[in-house]
Amino acid sequence: MEKIVEQAMLYDFYGELLNDHQKSIFEEYVLDNLSLSEIAEKRGISRQGVHDLIKRADKALNGYENKLHLVRKFLAVKERANEINRITKEITGDDNVEQVKHIVSITEAIIDEL
Amino acid sequence: MEKIVEQAMLYDFYGELLNDHQKSIFEEYVLDNLSLSEIAEKRGISRQGVHDLIKRADKALNGYENKLHLVRKFLAVKERANEINRITKEITGDDNVEQVKHIVSITEAIIDEL
Repeated sequence: MEKIVEQAMLYDFYGELLNDHQKSIFEEYVLDNLSLSEIAEKRGISRQGVHDLIKRADKALNGYENKLHLVRKFLAVKERANEINRITKEITGDDNVEQVKHIVSITEAIIDEL
Repeated sequence: MEKIVEQAMLYDFYGELLNDHQKSIFEEYVLDNLSLSEIAEKRGISRQGVHDLIKRADKALNGYENKLHLVRKFLAVKERANEINRITKEITGDDNVEQVKHIVSITEAIIDEL
């Protein structure tokens, strides 16, 4: 997975366990795609300071995932929902149209939520 | 939800964030169903000490859920998987037998894993 996507996903799951300062800088870097220098300038701190803070936040988020594996678990469920979605579309017969629609909409809800 | 089931579920999700001492006492209380007195005697500490430790662990686990809502999210997915399971069993037609089996087995995998 691309580093930035992985960071965003970890942040999405565990971000609330960071402190407010870490959260706002991590968001600017990972979600708003600001550069280290841009964040440093905006906040009047050194580029190195921003770098260290992001590195620490990153380490904390990865530490949570290494202990809890919840991102991995959720991704596995998402993959299974995609598989159900795919199989459901192979189902034939006029009697089954409503059921197929319903199953597809539930799998989409699972995929969107995760 | 019954208190003990809720505690076990919170522990299942976030238990790895407790320290080893909290983990082992919480397990004896919630998973092995030992009483406070039994744990106290076994470990040579006061019943009050065990009580306080479990209360703190409980508070920490609830704190994680209040911030991350991952148990709630997982339960919602599980409910959806049950719904897919139920609807799939309404599907008719000989052509669809394999698909139905496959979908049911995937939903069961989701339900078991969560």
